[in-house]
Amino acid sequence: MDELVIKNNARIIFLIMDGLGGLPMAGKPGTELETAKTPHMDALAKEGVCGLLDPIAPGITPGSGPAHFALFGYDPVKTSVGRGLLSAAGLDFPMTERDLCMRVNFATMNSEGQITDRRAGRIDTESNERLCRKLSEKIRPAPGTEVFFATEKEHRALIVLRGDDLREEITETDPQQTGLPPVAPRALIPEASATADLLKGLLEQAKVALSDEPKANMILLRGYARYHRFQSLSDRFGLNPLAIASYPMYRGIARLLGMKVYAPTSTLEEEIAALETAWPDHDFFFVHVKPTDSRGEDGNFDEKVKVIEAVDSLLPRITRLQPDVLVITGDHSTPAAMASHSWHPVPVLLSAKTCRPDRVENFGEGDCLSGGLGRMPMSSLMNVALAHAGRLTKFGA
Amino acid sequence: MDELVIKNNARIIFLIMDGLGGLPMAGKPGTELETAKTPHMDALAKEGVCGLLDPIAPGITPGSGPAHFALFGYDPVKTSVGRGLLSAAGLDFPMTERDLCMRVNFATMNSEGQITDRRAGRIDTESNERLCRKLSEKIRPAPGTEVFFATEKEHRALIVLRGDDLREEITETDPQQTGLPPVAPRALIPEASATADLLKGLLEQAKVALSDEPKANMILLRGYARYHRFQSLSDRFGLNPLAIASYPMYRGIARLLGMKVYAPTSTLEEEIAALETAWPDHDFFFVHVKPTDSRGEDGNFDEKVKVIEAVDSLLPRITRLQPDVLVITGDHSTPAAMASHSWHPVPVLLSAKTCRPDRVENFGEGDCLSGGLGRMPMSSLMNVALAHAGRLTKFGA
Repeated sequence: MDELVIKNNARIIFLIMDGLGGLPMAGKPGTELETAKTPHMDALAKEGVCGLLDPIAPGITPGSGPAHFALFGYDPVKTSVGRGLLSAAGLDFPMTERDLCMRVNFATMNSEGQITDRRAGRIDTESNERLCRKLSEKIRPAPGTEVFFATEKEHRALIVLRGDDLREEITETDPQQTGLPPVAPRALIPEASATADLLKGLLEQAKVALSDEPKANMILLRGYARYHRFQSLSDRFGLNPLAIASYPMYRGIARLLGMKVYAPTSTLEEEIAALETAWPDHDFFFVHVKPTDSRGEDGNFDEKVKVIEAVDSLLPRITRLQPDVLVITGDHSTPAAMASHSWHPVPVLLSAKTCRPDRVENFGEGDCLSGGLGRMPMSSLMNVALAHAGRLTKFGA
Repeated sequence: MDELVIKNNARIIFLIMDGLGGLPMAGKPGTELETAKTPHMDALAKEGVCGLLDPIAPGITPGSGPAHFALFGYDPVKTSVGRGLLSAAGLDFPMTERDLCMRVNFATMNSEGQITDRRAGRIDTESNERLCRKLSEKIRPAPGTEVFFATEKEHRALIVLRGDDLREEITETDPQQTGLPPVAPRALIPEASATADLLKGLLEQAKVALSDEPKANMILLRGYARYHRFQSLSDRFGLNPLAIASYPMYRGIARLLGMKVYAPTSTLEEEIAALETAWPDHDFFFVHVKPTDSRGEDGNFDEKVKVIEAVDSLLPRITRLQPDVLVITGDHSTPAAMASHSWHPVPVLLSAKTCRPDRVENFGEGDCLSGGLGRMPMSSLMNVALAHAGRLTKFGA
């Protein structure tokens, strides 16, 4: 339907509370969102239209990558990418189409070659930086290839192998439990055997280079992903988008989809201030709130409630900007009761002048069941937002 | 999404009341399910999550075959199979990949070669058995082929033609009304002409063999279906499934999908007893209740209500087993008001610890409209059940 797109000056905000959807839990009759006092969201829900979104499909629990692709109107299954690519994008690594990106975990190996700690005692980020420099200096890539190391955080790093005809269909090397040796990289299809050999050579050199390290004397590889170009939000929807996000991965996803990315922010307040500052310069704003998900992952119901309330208290600063379309939702559910992502559909609220009122008076999962957006695939949301922004023309005569 | 499957010890029950969905009818303000007193299902609905399922697509009335494929998570259009295959599976006929299965109706033909009774006066099953033996003895299959006859019930039998390169794209021979001669089997595609010729020869021999029969002096062929292997529930979902069903066709479908099938049961009580007995040995239980559909087909509203109430009264024996996931639904609607299958969506109830509560307090079609499962394709149900059983991992990072 991208051919229906028309440009205008209407502005759209996607306020994404990561892991927003929840569940009740012992002694808490409602979900986190239902429990939170959200007078501003409730007022928007009353005037606007609500519903529930399935990020991938009923019953399917999404990772943050595919869920965000769905939010931005991309088919989350077709655009599925490996973690390595998301990491590289999040670190703003200048990728080329000859790159194979991978996640690295620094690990501890004993003298028998068995992994004794898959995270090398969660070394600090500074040690990680030192180790990446060491690997960069000592490793001699095979002729015709280049190799890059970049620190993520603690024991996690990125490795990028650059060369011709590299493939991602290779087994990961993390044995998944301690007491076992690393798994040798093995080609899952014949075309990947040359790449598997390159990785074997690389791992042997890494082992030698790290042999004098007390903790982080080995690396484990996973999340193989070949870089490929995505159609940008500008190409597809004629938008001039800005991403405001504190976490690297979300900044990375935004970059993969051609969004401009605002300088790193560390608090919710800073994110709203960034939105205010950048307001004249863009027409699509992706504002990503991470702590809803983090507190959900912690299993901390009350703290997740507080994050939602904090967002609500800042909402007047967003509505004061008078966006043509304001969407408030999450990328997936992270119920504190499960302390993990889940498959439960995600509540969504859309506020615009062209909303057909439904009967929802409070923004919460139970009320959203009778919302006017009904239950939709998450990847349909972008079209609905564009429609309310007057940015989609008629299909057919 | 089958690659997301993980194995654990969680147990799932699918309690399928065939033709469960209904309609109000003169003097009855609610549907059969809404009219039935179902305190146990209502209690489960209150704690669990409800919704409505479309077996094939909105407006499409399904046969039992495709509806059951959808229930078990198979695309009902792509896996569509001819009735002959379902009959063969239901009779536990040992099929091979060289088999063309067909349904046979014994019929009465007059001296002018016109069909005067398409069901041969609904001959009894014993006569059917005698006729199948007679055909087996008298018919000489063409070189390179074999032919098998097996009694189903009353005037219905199964015929299996075994040979090389048999095709199913052939016209059925039942003229659909009396006073007309049988339709000659005609190839619908050129590749099927050899098979059509084989069937013509077979029908000529059958006519001769049955010429001395007073009633059943002809056979009509329909439901052509080449056997092909399906991915099993074990292969796709890592389940160790058991089917408990009294009717051959449902046992047949279960077998086609690789389920173990419990010894035939004839009452609801026996089915529940079977479930209790087999409980330790399986992790997925398909319990099929036929009389809801039969009473619907009879147009008998009150008796269908009674069947539903009988199931409800036995429900405590099921919940006492403490399944991790209990799904109660039908394969399609069979409203007594229509005395036939219908396209109306099917009420569904899912009970598990990870349900997000909705506002449904009674299990019935009207209440299910506001259920938390929303309205889903029936083929999505299996993924939702697996998710609640903790048997699906995350999609993407």
